[in-house]
Amino acid sequence: MDDVDTAAEPVRVGLIGAGRIGASHARLLATRVPGARLVGVADPRPGAAQAVAGPLGARAVTDPAELLEDPQVQGVVITASTEAHADLVSAAAAAGKGVFCEKPAGMTPADVERGVAATDAAGVPFQVGFNRRFDRGFAAARAQVEAGLIGTPQLLRSVTRDPGLANPAAVPPWAVFRLTLIHDFDTLLWLNPGAQPVSVYAVADALVAPGFKDAGLLDTAVVTVRFDNGAIATAEASFSAAYGYDVRGEVFGSAGALTVGSQAATSLVRHDASGTHAQTVRSDVELFADAYTGELAEFAAAVRERRAPAVTGRDAHRALLVATACIESVRTGLPVALEGAR
Amino acid sequence: MDDVDTAAEPVRVGLIGAGRIGASHARLLATRVPGARLVGVADPRPGAAQAVAGPLGARAVTDPAELLEDPQVQGVVITASTEAHADLVSAAAAAGKGVFCEKPAGMTPADVERGVAATDAAGVPFQVGFNRRFDRGFAAARAQVEAGLIGTPQLLRSVTRDPGLANPAAVPPWAVFRLTLIHDFDTLLWLNPGAQPVSVYAVADALVAPGFKDAGLLDTAVVTVRFDNGAIATAEASFSAAYGYDVRGEVFGSAGALTVGSQAATSLVRHDASGTHAQTVRSDVELFADAYTGELAEFAAAVRERRAPAVTGRDAHRALLVATACIESVRTGLPVALEGAR
Amino acid sequence: MDDVDTAAEPVRVGLIGAGRIGASHARLLATRVPGARLVGVADPRPGAAQAVAGPLGARAVTDPAELLEDPQVQGVVITASTEAHADLVSAAAAAGKGVFCEKPAGMTPADVERGVAATDAAGVPFQVGFNRRFDRGFAAARAQVEAGLIGTPQLLRSVTRDPGLANPAAVPPWAVFRLTLIHDFDTLLWLNPGAQPVSVYAVADALVAPGFKDAGLLDTAVVTVRFDNGAIATAEASFSAAYGYDVRGEVFGSAGALTVGSQAATSLVRHDASGTHAQTVRSDVELFADAYTGELAEFAAAVRERRAPAVTGRDAHRALLVATACIESVRTGLPVALEGAR
Amino acid sequence: MDDVDTAAEPVRVGLIGAGRIGASHARLLATRVPGARLVGVADPRPGAAQAVAGPLGARAVTDPAELLEDPQVQGVVITASTEAHADLVSAAAAAGKGVFCEKPAGMTPADVERGVAATDAAGVPFQVGFNRRFDRGFAAARAQVEAGLIGTPQLLRSVTRDPGLANPAAVPPWAVFRLTLIHDFDTLLWLNPGAQPVSVYAVADALVAPGFKDAGLLDTAVVTVRFDNGAIATAEASFSAAYGYDVRGEVFGSAGALTVGSQAATSLVRHDASGTHAQTVRSDVELFADAYTGELAEFAAAVRERRAPAVTGRDAHRALLVATACIESVRTGLPVALEGAR
Repeated sequence: MDDVDTAAEPVRVGLIGAGRIGASHARLLATRVPGARLVGVADPRPGAAQAVAGPLGARAVTDPAELLEDPQVQGVVITASTEAHADLVSAAAAAGKGVFCEKPAGMTPADVERGVAATDAAGVPFQVGFNRRFDRGFAAARAQVEAGLIGTPQLLRSVTRDPGLANPAAVPPWAVFRLTLIHDFDTLLWLNPGAQPVSVYAVADALVAPGFKDAGLLDTAVVTVRFDNGAIATAEASFSAAYGYDVRGEVFGSAGALTVGSQAATSLVRHDASGTHAQTVRSDVELFADAYTGELAEFAAAVRERRAPAVTGRDAHRALLVATACIESVRTGLPVALEGAR
Repeated sequence: MDDVDTAAEPVRVGLIGAGRIGASHARLLATRVPGARLVGVADPRPGAAQAVAGPLGARAVTDPAELLEDPQVQGVVITASTEAHADLVSAAAAAGKGVFCEKPAGMTPADVERGVAATDAAGVPFQVGFNRRFDRGFAAARAQVEAGLIGTPQLLRSVTRDPGLANPAAVPPWAVFRLTLIHDFDTLLWLNPGAQPVSVYAVADALVAPGFKDAGLLDTAVVTVRFDNGAIATAEASFSAAYGYDVRGEVFGSAGALTVGSQAATSLVRHDASGTHAQTVRSDVELFADAYTGELAEFAAAVRERRAPAVTGRDAHRALLVATACIESVRTGLPVALEGAR
Repeated sequence: MDDVDTAAEPVRVGLIGAGRIGASHARLLATRVPGARLVGVADPRPGAAQAVAGPLGARAVTDPAELLEDPQVQGVVITASTEAHADLVSAAAAAGKGVFCEKPAGMTPADVERGVAATDAAGVPFQVGFNRRFDRGFAAARAQVEAGLIGTPQLLRSVTRDPGLANPAAVPPWAVFRLTLIHDFDTLLWLNPGAQPVSVYAVADALVAPGFKDAGLLDTAVVTVRFDNGAIATAEASFSAAYGYDVRGEVFGSAGALTVGSQAATSLVRHDASGTHAQTVRSDVELFADAYTGELAEFAAAVRERRAPAVTGRDAHRALLVATACIESVRTGLPVALEGAR
Repeated sequence: MDDVDTAAEPVRVGLIGAGRIGASHARLLATRVPGARLVGVADPRPGAAQAVAGPLGARAVTDPAELLEDPQVQGVVITASTEAHADLVSAAAAAGKGVFCEKPAGMTPADVERGVAATDAAGVPFQVGFNRRFDRGFAAARAQVEAGLIGTPQLLRSVTRDPGLANPAAVPPWAVFRLTLIHDFDTLLWLNPGAQPVSVYAVADALVAPGFKDAGLLDTAVVTVRFDNGAIATAEASFSAAYGYDVRGEVFGSAGALTVGSQAATSLVRHDASGTHAQTVRSDVELFADAYTGELAEFAAAVRERRAPAVTGRDAHRALLVATACIESVRTGLPVALEGAR
């Protein structure tokens, strides 16, 4: 349980982009995040903002500018489409609002750098939605690595398997790297503290929806990342896990190894004539309910305390550099050296 | 995620008894329970109510009557000492408030019957704090039993191991049955739907704090319960688990078996030179955060919708009949027949 | 891996009783037990001995006396029907053979005492088939209890669930206590070293094959055992687990707890659209292949080295005292005090 | 349990190379493998053969030719140094003996092809020591893949972590690929039935014993393998797992996923004040005792029945092609295309 003084005036938050994850964040802000209050939701699609904001008692607008111009709003949560992230970050910073942006916070590393510069200039917090850092298991993994319990990391792994590809046509190009594996890249960088990635080799294919390969949709990928401390990491993604939502990590070090992540939806196990059975986790919202709450609580606290959040735009930049190198690796079929991934 | 219309006016709740579990429920009501608002906290001990209510923005009073007389208060959560439960339930019912009472809702079955009669007469909901029913694993177990996935229950087990006995002197007499195993009795009755307990045999001892045995403190107990459908159940409790808080259940039936409950605090596992290691759950508040939230959300919904809650005073009565028979069994050293445990 | 000097002349073993477990032991003696050689199999049923002995290159006889009179035979493994155990033990001892007898080694404690006296008088080893002691997990549990890793035992549990009741008519009376739970009683006594059982309370029923209840067949039982060190143990058995063969144990002590036993047939786990799935262990021969081999290797070593084996007739006597008290408890419906269970 | 007719005359086996794995295989042949008898052990090092053969009652020789010329010997198990494998395979084939050779069965694919040609010409079985195929979990994984339970394989993983590098100076060059990951390559090819590897990318480093890097010792490696059915596989190895011996596999397919492998030495779990604890598997001989027995039993059966074994020299050739491509990939820093890996 958090230690927030909930009697203090809650931080007033506006949310931009009422899609699936936007709706989830809005509900968490309105009902579960200590120290936050959802005051408005913006979405240009007719009715979209109202559908989310209405039941939560928040204001619905179509133009994000209305939220940015509202002096009541202290922080903005950006859950719009990826293409819009960078401009919204800069606009929010210019309006003096604290900024929480869903990953990847921009289409290119330069986009994200622009956001970092804008929020730095405005002196506002800039947090990015790497929610896994707020999962209790992943957070404990990082703590044990930092405490030296497994020695020096030598081999790492991060896996994301999403439960099915609802609409291949709607998936942005290179999403497997920029939208999905970006989580894994952040995890790998974070679980190998102080080390810098020096090269990547990526392979990717359209195995789930081969018909969309020509349109640029790659749904399956495996990436090898080498670090300057010698560690070698693997990241793996699929857009179509039949069994649900599967996120796992491993760190193998000179003194031991960690594994984190589980597919078990509950602690219930059934044994019957056909064997042993359990239910699997079916969605990110199910698996990461507490982690999403945690990252939004951190954002509210950072805005209230006018400090840098635990995950910043610089982290987003670093992870996107890796994703961008993966794209080049797939294009060329060759390993790609990384520079300046700090 | 719940489907509560959070834009509706939240149910206004007062809480009576600002002890450990009272403080936890108060915080959940103020920050996490959809559809509820904590408006007041009562505790006769100087400063106790304020310590809880203050940071949550609620009113603090010393006399519970102040909350019961407040027309704004729609429901009352009773987390006072066990001895006070029965009178508070009746008083709250008389005041027309919905009632949520921590288990055991009375010292004797007659106490609880009085509460049932009072709330029935007043036409208000009467819910009891059997939180395990709101745990996702236990709820899934019940659903699978009801769906017939393991056939007819034949053997059941419920275990509670608490993490240490802070102050033996403060433990009420027969607490192991009335305060702790009462949870297990409810679980066993609930996981064997439609069956009635017909006899119990209980053994108990003071193994953790032998010095308090003469004062009536029994800290370890094992109970056998027979049901009219032939099923045989075991309930087991200890007040001093070195490794934390351990709640587990089993149902073995003619077509399979269920196990539920886990000691894993997170999904993180470490392997090192001394073997495999994981962190354990350390408290009920940690293990059952979502279950506590769920039961309070159910209470708010029952008050709002003026309906019976999912767990009622009748369930409390049934479980307390079993606990009372256990006390007699320990006193006599013999099995005890149960009647009317419906 | 054992450290037996396999170049030494193997111990020559005869086996009496070519039933299911006899056939399994014979095969292990012939193919896997270091330091043993199966030389003969006796069974009065026509063809039974030959069916087992033939493929293993051993001699088949109908009269056990032929094996007992054979000077080549150094040790005898008794896997005959329970009623025949006691007389065969005495006859084998009189013939100067080392004796391994399947549990319960007699129908009554007096039977087993007779066997102990006979083997003591003859100066031959007398081992009993409590194979669980040779399971790596159970053996490690005992070692950790003895090392004090969980403090003083306070609560214990042992469970046996057999995979189905093939022929209810063939089950001897009180088999649930004398043939099945006798394993659990030995386990509980062994995992609570130095403590003596002081009372038992047993309930039992015919839930699997109710039609055989009048014939005395009880297929489901739960037993509470109290020890003189305060520990309380539960033993539980069913003759009809739909999912296979399930043997588990627990020891909860003042400093921690142990659990042992698993239903997993292999390390393979499958996740698919209907959840997570694994295969379960289906028989004792599958679960305890190594433990059966281990107990027979211990027997061969004890015969070779003319020493007492790790599990003796005295252990059989102690466990059967508990089983016998259970029968009285079921008959009377009351707890039964134990005396002299040493 | 196997169904071998153990009364048949056992197959007489000679073993060449009395090192660690040779000693283990010799003991299994002498004591556990149904249908086999160890008749001789050859090793040129003074006393080495006798140390292994003596306690097992087998003949010790220094010159392998003595075993090959012995008409009693029907099959030969080659556990000599890798450099000697190819010549011994050919010599054994020329002598008309069935051949079991430890992986990799040759230093180069051409070596192995020579062995395949020699054994084909002689009409003798040629089995290779890919023992994981005989592990119950891995075997069940393969069976479920073949049964279509997880659809078409899309992502695979195989991991080998060895428990410490006793003597870096003794490790042959490129051992991480040719001696260790060769197991993983076989596993990946076998768990993706019918598919052919089309390219590999390998990274490797000396993280455990950096001082030996200049001498060519690489102790840590990660490999990406692409298949002609689109599947992408990862293989990962380390020579120094602090916690023991860790072998795991994963297959993710269009309809589900499999994981196989466990670090648990037994089913025992302890919970205490510092959390949950279990013992880990410490060596290949511990983890794969049954698998080693199984592969040798298969060899004995293939010799007896004059048929091809379940794992052949052709499998060794295929896996070594992948290992050889990995060496080239590390040398060049580039992905390497594979041809003819059938």
